[in-house]
Amino acid sequence: MSHFTKVLITGAAGALGKELRHSALRLGGSVRLTDRIASEDLADHEEDMPVDLADFDGVMQVVEGCDAIVHLGGQSREGTWEAVLDSNIKGTYNIYEAARQHGVERIVYASSVHATGYYERNETIDAKAPQRPDSLYGVSKCFGEDLSRYCFDQFGIESVCLRIGSCFPEPVDRRMLITWLSYGDFRQIVELSLSAPRVGHMISFATSDNRERFWNNEAASVLGYRPQDSADDYREKVFAATDQGHPNDPAVRFQGGSFCAVGHFEDE
Amino acid sequence: MSHFTKVLITGAAGALGKELRHSALRLGGSVRLTDRIASEDLADHEEDMPVDLADFDGVMQVVEGCDAIVHLGGQSREGTWEAVLDSNIKGTYNIYEAARQHGVERIVYASSVHATGYYERNETIDAKAPQRPDSLYGVSKCFGEDLSRYCFDQFGIESVCLRIGSCFPEPVDRRMLITWLSYGDFRQIVELSLSAPRVGHMISFATSDNRERFWNNEAASVLGYRPQDSADDYREKVFAATDQGHPNDPAVRFQGGSFCAVGHFEDE
Amino acid sequence: MSHFTKVLITGAAGALGKELRHSALRLGGSVRLTDRIASEDLADHEEDMPVDLADFDGVMQVVEGCDAIVHLGGQSREGTWEAVLDSNIKGTYNIYEAARQHGVERIVYASSVHATGYYERNETIDAKAPQRPDSLYGVSKCFGEDLSRYCFDQFGIESVCLRIGSCFPEPVDRRMLITWLSYGDFRQIVELSLSAPRVGHMISFATSDNRERFWNNEAASVLGYRPQDSADDYREKVFAATDQGHPNDPAVRFQGGSFCAVGHFEDE
Amino acid sequence: MSHFTKVLITGAAGALGKELRHSALRLGGSVRLTDRIASEDLADHEEDMPVDLADFDGVMQVVEGCDAIVHLGGQSREGTWEAVLDSNIKGTYNIYEAARQHGVERIVYASSVHATGYYERNETIDAKAPQRPDSLYGVSKCFGEDLSRYCFDQFGIESVCLRIGSCFPEPVDRRMLITWLSYGDFRQIVELSLSAPRVGHMISFATSDNRERFWNNEAASVLGYRPQDSADDYREKVFAATDQGHPNDPAVRFQGGSFCAVGHFEDE
Amino acid sequence: MSHFTKVLITGAAGALGKELRHSALRLGGSVRLTDRIASEDLADHEEDMPVDLADFDGVMQVVEGCDAIVHLGGQSREGTWEAVLDSNIKGTYNIYEAARQHGVERIVYASSVHATGYYERNETIDAKAPQRPDSLYGVSKCFGEDLSRYCFDQFGIESVCLRIGSCFPEPVDRRMLITWLSYGDFRQIVELSLSAPRVGHMISFATSDNRERFWNNEAASVLGYRPQDSADDYREKVFAATDQGHPNDPAVRFQGGSFCAVGHFEDE
Amino acid sequence: MSHFTKVLITGAAGALGKELRHSALRLGGSVRLTDRIASEDLADHEEDMPVDLADFDGVMQVVEGCDAIVHLGGQSREGTWEAVLDSNIKGTYNIYEAARQHGVERIVYASSVHATGYYERNETIDAKAPQRPDSLYGVSKCFGEDLSRYCFDQFGIESVCLRIGSCFPEPVDRRMLITWLSYGDFRQIVELSLSAPRVGHMISFATSDNRERFWNNEAASVLGYRPQDSADDYREKVFAATDQGHPNDPAVRFQGGSFCAVGHFEDE
Repeated sequence: MSHFTKVLITGAAGALGKELRHSALRLGGSVRLTDRIASEDLADHEEDMPVDLADFDGVMQVVEGCDAIVHLGGQSREGTWEAVLDSNIKGTYNIYEAARQHGVERIVYASSVHATGYYERNETIDAKAPQRPDSLYGVSKCFGEDLSRYCFDQFGIESVCLRIGSCFPEPVDRRMLITWLSYGDFRQIVELSLSAPRVGHMISFATSDNRERFWNNEAASVLGYRPQDSADDYREKVFAATDQGHPNDPAVRFQGGSFCAVGHFEDE
Repeated sequence: MSHFTKVLITGAAGALGKELRHSALRLGGSVRLTDRIASEDLADHEEDMPVDLADFDGVMQVVEGCDAIVHLGGQSREGTWEAVLDSNIKGTYNIYEAARQHGVERIVYASSVHATGYYERNETIDAKAPQRPDSLYGVSKCFGEDLSRYCFDQFGIESVCLRIGSCFPEPVDRRMLITWLSYGDFRQIVELSLSAPRVGHMISFATSDNRERFWNNEAASVLGYRPQDSADDYREKVFAATDQGHPNDPAVRFQGGSFCAVGHFEDE
Repeated sequence: MSHFTKVLITGAAGALGKELRHSALRLGGSVRLTDRIASEDLADHEEDMPVDLADFDGVMQVVEGCDAIVHLGGQSREGTWEAVLDSNIKGTYNIYEAARQHGVERIVYASSVHATGYYERNETIDAKAPQRPDSLYGVSKCFGEDLSRYCFDQFGIESVCLRIGSCFPEPVDRRMLITWLSYGDFRQIVELSLSAPRVGHMISFATSDNRERFWNNEAASVLGYRPQDSADDYREKVFAATDQGHPNDPAVRFQGGSFCAVGHFEDE
Repeated sequence: MSHFTKVLITGAAGALGKELRHSALRLGGSVRLTDRIASEDLADHEEDMPVDLADFDGVMQVVEGCDAIVHLGGQSREGTWEAVLDSNIKGTYNIYEAARQHGVERIVYASSVHATGYYERNETIDAKAPQRPDSLYGVSKCFGEDLSRYCFDQFGIESVCLRIGSCFPEPVDRRMLITWLSYGDFRQIVELSLSAPRVGHMISFATSDNRERFWNNEAASVLGYRPQDSADDYREKVFAATDQGHPNDPAVRFQGGSFCAVGHFEDE
Repeated sequence: MSHFTKVLITGAAGALGKELRHSALRLGGSVRLTDRIASEDLADHEEDMPVDLADFDGVMQVVEGCDAIVHLGGQSREGTWEAVLDSNIKGTYNIYEAARQHGVERIVYASSVHATGYYERNETIDAKAPQRPDSLYGVSKCFGEDLSRYCFDQFGIESVCLRIGSCFPEPVDRRMLITWLSYGDFRQIVELSLSAPRVGHMISFATSDNRERFWNNEAASVLGYRPQDSADDYREKVFAATDQGHPNDPAVRFQGGSFCAVGHFEDE
Repeated sequence: MSHFTKVLITGAAGALGKELRHSALRLGGSVRLTDRIASEDLADHEEDMPVDLADFDGVMQVVEGCDAIVHLGGQSREGTWEAVLDSNIKGTYNIYEAARQHGVERIVYASSVHATGYYERNETIDAKAPQRPDSLYGVSKCFGEDLSRYCFDQFGIESVCLRIGSCFPEPVDRRMLITWLSYGDFRQIVELSLSAPRVGHMISFATSDNRERFWNNEAASVLGYRPQDSADDYREKVFAATDQGHPNDPAVRFQGGSFCAVGHFEDE
């Protein structure tokens, strides 16, 4: 159980946000939800304040009174520059600036393995390896990590940047056999990121206990993260349903998968 | 002499841009200048096309026909989020996106030592050390470095990110005895960044041959950079004119100097 | 299951080769066996083409039509220079050169922990530690690793170099409590080396899940290797049957064991 | 079972010393106990020779006839300089000098995580990280590690320096959820440190299999250490009974816990 | 010129202490000298207060009123344990404890290359390499480094630990062609250690600009140290006057030279 | 001046061998020359014993009576496998095996930058970076390095492996502006490799003081190597006479230059 009194969840109406609501009071004394759309079926410990993250004044109101934030909101896949800029760059700045003005103590930031997607699949990296984003989306996640580092060094706002892999009900392609993060393990690592007495500024990869692994994830050990699920349970099903790409296909060669195989403006 | 036929200089009307014009044909076959204001005294090999970097259509026109860019434009010190966002984040994106669409081969990007300003002054770091920006300005420089890494990995656009120290006529405070980059040495490292046959994606610190140094700068050796000037010539003058701060003052303790000592919105 | 259509196994009549035949169709669509002597009891998916690896023309014929190779053949212990040269240096060159000419895509190469046998027993190394061979045999394994690196960089032939420990039915001396690789785990790691969609050029130590360990083996994590056996089951038996050497005996002091304790030409 | 014929245990009448006596003949052919006070209930394989470690002549007598030492004696928490100097600096010197003169082959030295207590809690370090002691006690443990390194390099006396966490019947505060070492696991790692055929000079952290961990402990893998206990079994009990400190409290921020939060002479 | 008002020099009557007095007011506003014997020919800015460093009360008096210390005092070569303990361990503790009680801000501590003397001569190490002392003297220097690290982390007392090579009028044996530190360069690096605005806790090797070098000395770059002298000027003279030892002689093989070749109690 | 009494130079009739003869008595008490052809104009301190390095019995005769070897012989560029095998693999083995049998103490082995030619041009590597040969020639140089490492660890034969760049009268293409080693600097580093009192097993890059550099060459500092020449003196001449390749041409992209751009059997 964390020591925070009110925890804001951004992106609360998305798939991950909905899952996280199952963590309930393990996140903090009470939970405030926000998203562009309203959340449903509020529990007693929940309140809902929809907002557009690109609206700074709105964000200021939503953040007020919270002492911790789980920032899941924004664009969660590659998009146009305008979408990435508004949702992820402006949106994340607004969250951190509001947090600074309102004295928020800790932020769990949903970063992504696409911040380092251009490492080769047969390399093992740790969280200190220089960022190698694989998309504008990945660049925006690097921006969030860099901003959070600055806000810790300058203002003392603690952050755990979780480089989330593929968080879905189950793995549906072969790369997800490596990158899958079950909903249960997602909740576990977010809960630990809030309940740890001190996190300073940390970056941690976040996947389940999958047998293939291209990350040395010591940061997760510091948090006490012990994943309970594994993509291995779906291995045969995935192999039967999918083809294996060519080893020189960028989608196979690089950790970022298909993000490394396409240009970002598809219509050109 | 570089092999490029037309080199665009952004920020051409600023102090560094003006200096770089002295490099003349060593940069490329001809030079196009751009800034928000017009440049003066054009030489035969120069043309001028003023533009606001935040205007993507304008940037597209300015970039067309160039095969290399020296991107000095944008905000060169801490500013409001709006200023940093428009000049450095949108502006740098516009340059790289226009470069991608027009087939520009190489960009020399004026990054800054403020991308790593929160390392302690008595630490030595190299260019692979994780970024630790000391300001919104520094965060925007990290953004440019990350974006350029992505554009190399995805599109093959080469970049040299020069983490420029204090580029002024002479060092005027004690920290500049470490960080000073003379105009001559600035021109040298930019010229080398263009004339090197291949740079891939590189990050290099850029200072003169000052006796104090907190960077291990192997990347500069790859370029063949051998600074000709030294802040040492101004050492006594600077010592006489300035006070030494307290060792625990963030402006003394951290590599970023005064950027580490002030919050970014002073009036709040 | 791998995506290869025909996999060549060299050294097929040796102990490891015979074991690997139990992997059957998990290796590829069909399997071709080769050794200096004929293999017996061929299954439907198997064919046998005996050859001497030092005979390049013969090797060319054997490799033709295969798209992957598991190269177990050659001298598997210290020998005279002539034996090592013919079997391991010329033999491995012949395999790689034939692979290049016939367009083989991937080779699983049986390297050895004797490629790094001169590290001290109480050191932990990873696969990037400089080679320190402990014998002419070890030098020949370094040669194979170096050649395979070259063939990947120059020709794109993928290789997994497995630094195999002690692959026997069970551990029979105290060092094998650390280095033992069960036949089952051997088959697992070879199968994974073939079924992984991309391996590039990798070096991986290969031992079972023994409690003592002097390797940090991240490469095996990339492959998804999870050993199922452990030398621990034989611990008491081995302790009862063997003596412990003196800590300063090279056979005890160095990872390579007895290879480090004897000169290579005993009769001189 | 180790190959030593007589093993000396210093600090034998303390909590850890008493526990270690349960290891009985797994330590060596026979066991000699020593402490400032007499030990009780001697077994057939035990003898007792009380001594003050600061008394060199006494230590010489106690060490004579032993071929291995488990050095648990001395001050096990912060104290005055005089206490630390006598018990830990002079005492440890006396043990090593007597060992040198009597030809002792191996020493298991009870070092402490307080030798590196000033690393931040959210950092992961390994045993090669520079020492950062958090107390005079920690400085004395660094002294012992440095002296043992010297005695191995100069005289060939092997040492395993065990950086023991919190060795108590059960964890009683939140930091111990990370640092706890059960008595059983303590016995295991000491036994392994004696039975390993060669240890050279090693430093190993020593904790149980607790889910939170801020050490990369490869040295323990070399020894074959596999902890059987975990602080997790006490997690709820500890959380219920204790408060979580503020993240900026040095007792929370640094690995050394409360040692980092207090000056060493409280009455000054 | 440093910003300190009164600098204490211990060991002031020794060879290095005498040399340092030539630095005069570049060390601070005034200088206090101390040693077991009185210093002679005091200048106006100097005062002398002889003391035995093992006498804590005396040390307290000597330190009072100083804001910086250059701690050269103590045993400067291998000796008996008693001598090392009194002069270097107790003496250095007394200096740091008195500094803590009197609010001294910075200490320049004369450490030694014998703190890492057991690295091989053909290895290059930096200041973060684990200590490997080559003598009881070297162990005592490690103690001083560890204590100073603790005093910085706990109390904020800044220290520069200078691992001084061979500081003599000129090099007189072949190892000194590597380790020689001229008196002039010694003065330079001490002056810089005091005048640098912030040093935190640093360890730096200190030798002249000798062509052979087995240290990567980035810390000296942070200080701005640029040695003016070189052992090369004495190369022919030294070669003519001395013999080269056997490569397997510990005095040749290890960085610590003859310290690595002798046991510490020669008469035993 | 070295302490060796008779130094064998292999490849003595080649360009480098001839140059080295100018070093005369600085190499040792006397010099024995060998090559497939006879050397001319023997000095008093020289004798000549031509041999084919592939002839072991002949090599045994040539090595007898020498205590050091400078092994320049063999194929110095890419060739057929048969040529590389005979000259470089068998030839180098024969030298080391004869050295072992005759008690030779030290070998200076002419390795090559082609042992690491597949690193990218804008990377800086040191001598511990894993080998990445760019040719069969490069693989054979890796073999020599590995063999020499083994012969040091097992038999105590010291070796300096010099990774020679482009050793010619002057640089004639743009890559040589980086890799050029003047004859004078070549002689210097060989002389130092013999005169150093102990080298153990070292690998050192060997180039002149060229302004561009992609090696961190600490090993050369240990030897005391200070190059006196620079390719910079030829910079303008080379630029005028040669074209710059395309940055994606392997000959430009990789450190090995043109070796990385061609398959090894051009006629296939």
